[in-house]
Amino acid sequence: LASRLPNVGTTIFTVMSALAAEKRAVNLGQGFPDFNCDPRIVDAVAKAMRDGHNQYPPMAGIMPLRQAISGKIANLYGRRYDADTEITVTAGATQALLTAILATVHPGDEVVVLEPNYDSYLPSIELAGGKPVFVTLEAPDYAIPFDKLAAAITPKTRLILINTPHNPTGTVWRAADMRKLEDIVRDTNVLILSDEVYEHMVYDGAPHESVARYPELAQRSFVVSSFGKTYHVTGWKIGYVAAPAALMAEFRKVHQFNVFTVNTPMQYGLTDYLRNPAPYLDLPAFYQQKRDFFREGLAKTRFKLLPCTGTYFQCVDYSAVSTLSEADFSTWLTSEIGVAAIPVSAFYHEAHESGVVRFCFAKQESTLATALERLARL
Amino acid sequence: LASRLPNVGTTIFTVMSALAAEKRAVNLGQGFPDFNCDPRIVDAVAKAMRDGHNQYPPMAGIMPLRQAISGKIANLYGRRYDADTEITVTAGATQALLTAILATVHPGDEVVVLEPNYDSYLPSIELAGGKPVFVTLEAPDYAIPFDKLAAAITPKTRLILINTPHNPTGTVWRAADMRKLEDIVRDTNVLILSDEVYEHMVYDGAPHESVARYPELAQRSFVVSSFGKTYHVTGWKIGYVAAPAALMAEFRKVHQFNVFTVNTPMQYGLTDYLRNPAPYLDLPAFYQQKRDFFREGLAKTRFKLLPCTGTYFQCVDYSAVSTLSEADFSTWLTSEIGVAAIPVSAFYHEAHESGVVRFCFAKQESTLATALERLARL
Ligand SMILES: CSCCC(=O)C(=O)O
Ligand SMILES: CSCCC(=O)C(=O)O
Repeated sequence: LASRLPNVGTTIFTVMSALAAEKRAVNLGQGFPDFNCDPRIVDAVAKAMRDGHNQYPPMAGIMPLRQAISGKIANLYGRRYDADTEITVTAGATQALLTAILATVHPGDEVVVLEPNYDSYLPSIELAGGKPVFVTLEAPDYAIPFDKLAAAITPKTRLILINTPHNPTGTVWRAADMRKLEDIVRDTNVLILSDEVYEHMVYDGAPHESVARYPELAQRSFVVSSFGKTYHVTGWKIGYVAAPAALMAEFRKVHQFNVFTVNTPMQYGLTDYLRNPAPYLDLPAFYQQKRDFFREGLAKTRFKLLPCTGTYFQCVDYSAVSTLSEADFSTWLTSEIGVAAIPVSAFYHEAHESGVVRFCFAKQESTLATALERLARL
Repeated sequence: LASRLPNVGTTIFTVMSALAAEKRAVNLGQGFPDFNCDPRIVDAVAKAMRDGHNQYPPMAGIMPLRQAISGKIANLYGRRYDADTEITVTAGATQALLTAILATVHPGDEVVVLEPNYDSYLPSIELAGGKPVFVTLEAPDYAIPFDKLAAAITPKTRLILINTPHNPTGTVWRAADMRKLEDIVRDTNVLILSDEVYEHMVYDGAPHESVARYPELAQRSFVVSSFGKTYHVTGWKIGYVAAPAALMAEFRKVHQFNVFTVNTPMQYGLTDYLRNPAPYLDLPAFYQQKRDFFREGLAKTRFKLLPCTGTYFQCVDYSAVSTLSEADFSTWLTSEIGVAAIPVSAFYHEAHESGVVRFCFAKQESTLATALERLARL
């Protein structure tokens, strides 16, 4: 059997979580909270199941949830997506990304991606028959080289993938960046796939720069987000995509034959929960406190801190600690020191060593303290 | 924006369910129960959420659920799939089908499909860049023309899609059919994608002929099933696929970048529920009673009954009632008579009129009685 994805192995998140479990390491690798969600959201889902909401929901998601999503986006970013034709609930953000790519990228089309990037992007483009075109964020702070981004656009470019707040680097796009992107795509037919799953984790009082804020961008964009990350339920696998109706129509053609639709009781439970004053607004403060605690601890170690202005990821330069490759260092750190990390090299399509690993700080303070104590020994 | 699926509209199930809701018709169209699931399974999921099972599960599904699936298949069909490497939990069967197709079909490969077929098959093949090759089941009883199936196999055939019990026709494959399939694929490299989501709805004491029973078939097959259909929770979107390790490795490469993984609390809840003596074994009797009730009622109408030996679908020939096309008749029946049905023409790739519509009898007796009363007026 010839592989459709010959260069793909098991995703690094699965590999490192399995190793962390085996070695009983503190798992700061894969991004997920080690604390439970709000019990009220659990009660709301349980109620939905008892009320009999266990059969197929509408293909695009239940209407009250789509209305809540539409209302939230309008409220935060000033664009009103039509709940009927412009919002679809998805089985998490990863499914939304693959579906949007399959729905828009024709064999031979070029897709511009900024590196490093989340590890589903390239295989998704490959499955669609697209050709990835890489633009590398620049050391040491992962600056976006807009001149190179502009130069990467050709008549064959179908799509640009962007991601802010950015996984794995923990950087965010600013308004000036969005304006530069507007300049680049103006007068082209390029679409944008905007991965905004960490939208509620932007720190130091800065706003999240959703493409939904920028009409010139929004009219050509799929905006992808995740309830799992916002409500501490990464295992519920529920997210959404918002896009202008013409784009959404194509998205749904694929979505209906991929997952068809998404878990009914979770949709009702979330809808019920969202009727309370939007609880996601507390997230920046909630996670900023964890970030600050973690960074203060790391500052006392031999790791060099990189900036973290968004996401729940903190990257560190370990070159003062070890000369191992990022993959080997992550394995060693997990196995020998008892702290799992993710090598940033896993987010590049070719060998790329910069002596940087990623930690997830979506953890209880006691978990972070244990990890810091172990890291301080190095 | 050029469509990737220019010939695809909204799935017929969504269209007819929306019309049924609008017209307040009895919905015998889309296949789902109108009764609730066992409250114990709901309690098990609620407990899982309270116990904190809300973060990412392993990519392929939680191990105890995979073990339960492996045990069930071994028990019923005599093949032992390795829970670690040969079973993956999916976000419903539709996602399993698309994922298996994307993982195996290369652009230009031929995929043999029997018509009529479930409406996700063709778009899935198209997204993979495959070329569907059609073999039509033969009137009046949807017999499988094995000579034509054999003739359809070429050196370019990558995959045959089979489906037993069969949606929409309600027919099932018998042991002799499976033997003929063995003869056809022997000495070829053809893979089989076997959609067995109605495996627990085979009537009149007959066994379900899973490909898992036939080693020569099983070693080249993906077996797809659905918890949603078996446990009356179609909205939970949880199913699974079993396949030999080499095939499963390719499946997971795509799965991990499609949905990544499947709802955690549902997986724990189902695992807990499955610890009781396998409740799916009652399904044949449970649905056979509904089938018999529905058929007895239909026998008193002017509809002509087609055989139903499996699934929860009953096809009828309406030619004594109307000369409308199947699509128009289904719309009329829904709007004017108050009973939604699915036109069987929706399961063919080209215009195909045989005066047949499909009813779903996974309904309370009172629902079926109301529908029968309306149908008897014609
Ligand atoms: C889908 S598992 C990975 C979770 C995640 O987004 C990350 O750790 O980067
Ligand atoms: C995925 S919605 C359709 C349900 C179903 O399998 C059917 O009605 O045939």
